[in-house]
Amino acid sequence: MELRELFNDIEKYQEKEIILQGWIRNHRKQKEFGFIDFSDGTCFEHIQIVYDNQLDDFEEITKLHNGSAIEVRGKIVSSQGEKQAFEVKANNIILLGDAVEEYPLQPKRHSREFLREISYLRPRTNLFQAVFRIRSLASMAIHTYFQERGYVYTHTPILTANDGEGAGEMFKVTTLNLNELPLTKEGEINYQDDFFGKKVGLTVTGQLEGEAFALAFKKIYTFGPTFRAENSNTKTHASEFWMIEPEIAFCELEELMDIEEDMLRFIVKYIFQHASKEMDFLDQFVSPGLKDKLKIVLEKKAARITHEEAINILKKSKKKFEFEPKQGEDLAREHEKYLTEEYFQSPVCVYNWPKEIKAFYMKLNDDQKTVAAVDLLVPGSGELMGGSQREEDYDKLISRMKELKMSSQGLEWYLNLRKFGGCKHSGFGMGFERLLIYLTGVENIRDVIPFPRTPKSCDF
Amino acid sequence: MELRELFNDIEKYQEKEIILQGWIRNHRKQKEFGFIDFSDGTCFEHIQIVYDNQLDDFEEITKLHNGSAIEVRGKIVSSQGEKQAFEVKANNIILLGDAVEEYPLQPKRHSREFLREISYLRPRTNLFQAVFRIRSLASMAIHTYFQERGYVYTHTPILTANDGEGAGEMFKVTTLNLNELPLTKEGEINYQDDFFGKKVGLTVTGQLEGEAFALAFKKIYTFGPTFRAENSNTKTHASEFWMIEPEIAFCELEELMDIEEDMLRFIVKYIFQHASKEMDFLDQFVSPGLKDKLKIVLEKKAARITHEEAINILKKSKKKFEFEPKQGEDLAREHEKYLTEEYFQSPVCVYNWPKEIKAFYMKLNDDQKTVAAVDLLVPGSGELMGGSQREEDYDKLISRMKELKMSSQGLEWYLNLRKFGGCKHSGFGMGFERLLIYLTGVENIRDVIPFPRTPKSCDF
Repeated sequence: MELRELFNDIEKYQEKEIILQGWIRNHRKQKEFGFIDFSDGTCFEHIQIVYDNQLDDFEEITKLHNGSAIEVRGKIVSSQGEKQAFEVKANNIILLGDAVEEYPLQPKRHSREFLREISYLRPRTNLFQAVFRIRSLASMAIHTYFQERGYVYTHTPILTANDGEGAGEMFKVTTLNLNELPLTKEGEINYQDDFFGKKVGLTVTGQLEGEAFALAFKKIYTFGPTFRAENSNTKTHASEFWMIEPEIAFCELEELMDIEEDMLRFIVKYIFQHASKEMDFLDQFVSPGLKDKLKIVLEKKAARITHEEAINILKKSKKKFEFEPKQGEDLAREHEKYLTEEYFQSPVCVYNWPKEIKAFYMKLNDDQKTVAAVDLLVPGSGELMGGSQREEDYDKLISRMKELKMSSQGLEWYLNLRKFGGCKHSGFGMGFERLLIYLTGVENIRDVIPFPRTPKSCDF
Repeated sequence: MELRELFNDIEKYQEKEIILQGWIRNHRKQKEFGFIDFSDGTCFEHIQIVYDNQLDDFEEITKLHNGSAIEVRGKIVSSQGEKQAFEVKANNIILLGDAVEEYPLQPKRHSREFLREISYLRPRTNLFQAVFRIRSLASMAIHTYFQERGYVYTHTPILTANDGEGAGEMFKVTTLNLNELPLTKEGEINYQDDFFGKKVGLTVTGQLEGEAFALAFKKIYTFGPTFRAENSNTKTHASEFWMIEPEIAFCELEELMDIEEDMLRFIVKYIFQHASKEMDFLDQFVSPGLKDKLKIVLEKKAARITHEEAINILKKSKKKFEFEPKQGEDLAREHEKYLTEEYFQSPVCVYNWPKEIKAFYMKLNDDQKTVAAVDLLVPGSGELMGGSQREEDYDKLISRMKELKMSSQGLEWYLNLRKFGGCKHSGFGMGFERLLIYLTGVENIRDVIPFPRTPKSCDF
């Protein structure tokens, strides 16, 4: 049976014979007894296996290595130890797969840097059992939230010939033989000979295609990998990450903020409910205060202020910021921190941003200066979601693109959406790893991705 | 309100005033009346909007184009028409977004080829409303199946330096300037200067990384995009598609087959339950007999036969096959068809395949000739899943790789899994689009992917 089932109702199994298969996390031997800290990975809890020298192969069992896979037959009994209420009194322990002596994971504290070098083994540690189970559960929370409300999950393409709103540097994708690149008469690389007959890269956003689907299904969401070829080595940047991009027709900015908040609350509740042991562990050992920080989002409505108001608050704060807050300019991390953690002590929606620092597709407000965009900031993590109402007016969109000297080539279909029954619509994007950093209190994006990809690093 | 809510319990709304926002799918005008076939995309059902010349702007309303976005205020009333029980008697119809005259979607039968050219508009048609809603629901069915059973959803990497078991041709991913490629002293391309400092491509499978996670969490599944740079233009090949790859520790082939069948049954039931209107439509207009075909999987257990038995059955059938069935060789589409549709009239698990035609990581059986692999074949679609028990023996795996002249470079970590508490484990892969072709009866993979990518085609 699985530990997951066992811990679901362990009292039911008292004095019952059970069979477990899993791994030795730690092994202590005494003269007459042995104690195995046993996990099968199906839940955060481990169980203690006790065996004694009445077993025929006692000597052999005492030699079992940490990390080895074993099968245990035994009985669930009350434990005399203080750490656990129940343990398994083993009748039989069989080695299924040895972990050789040089097994790098030992029952001690390894540094996260070291564990990154063995990403294929780190999910066996408590920290990464917690993080990656929460990653799985948070994915399910997101799907559940949207599906229960009738949103259609849309797989927008990964390979694309759009450069996606200039949101970031793109990876090129090709099957050309780089040693013998085909050239045009003019000496340019001839992409007509490439796999797709044109220049193609990895998507930086599914939004544009998402808009097309929202104008058919009313409410859609994407949830898929996204790429940035930016050469930045920070704690919060990865070259490959997952993103959620809901898009809703007939929706204005105000309602979009409602949805953002409602979704976030749903996810936090879901995680508290489905990963309570993991959250206790993270709260206790990884990020003290984590649970209180997350409870804020359950208890307090987000403040909603315009970008202009945000800057005014920052200016009036008399706080010494490294970057001086200025009207018309972006918020720095320290500004977000002040707004969410000191001034409001709650999540904050900052909306109506200066058009100059936001993307071309955002709806121009009547003031002609700001766009109907919103960033949702949370205590501890700063910006968690970025969204906007989209410019649904064909002429305004075209003129904004001209202002920005953007070519409409390849985007004709996107512009046409405004001529073919277009309507008000809004959407937002949430970086999934940013959410996980927020939920787990783990600071480095490399530690919330199973096999992280960053500049000069693409192992496993 | 949304049509989804309305149709959930339409009788409740009789004689009630409602407000709807959505699109005109068809518009018929008479002298004194107009009829709008109205959809808001939130469910498969449309509703008829009736308006009459008592409305002040009757004349303007009669001019509204197909495809336009409108807001309707009116009352739910019993319909006098035969097609529907209820309709909306409009008090007010406002144009929210015009569909200009050249709007390409008109209320007539468009060819699927034409609709592919306007993939950004085709989800507005009945067929693609059905297909892409089922795509969304089938995704949710898969997540629900695995999460309810404690599997951990694992995001395996898309960018990889492995060539993934040689499962297929890979796309190269680079940020090098192709016009000025950096070269080594030997005149080779210097990938050390590339973004990741090495040669990187798009994954063809998440299995290897999935195995690492299964040996930590016991049961995991992947669900993400996968790529093949194969220049094949068939109905069933796409360059970008989604794949589900569960991997289970302590699991042998027999149990794997149980899981495959159980999952498939769950998905089919889920779709019948959540997309009944869509399935009725597909059964009636797209693929007659579809529902009966799918019910087979609910009612009959899959036959389980070895590859050798399969070939024997084919040989004895006296059927004239284009490709003669031969021991040691792969099954052709026509063979799969005969086994599932004529001989067994049920899904069929074909297991114990000749090792020569299967992948290196599959567990060698005691006969030294076959591997513990299984293909699940279904009536109508042929192979739907391919799985195997994995070779957990380090030495056997190494010797198999040597036989195949495979280099272990870059796979050391994968091999190490066999030395670090490795155990029996099994997994399978299911192409998501193949599942959708099976579920919807739509034959061409281009018609079950929102924006399909195939050789020389990467639009939108």
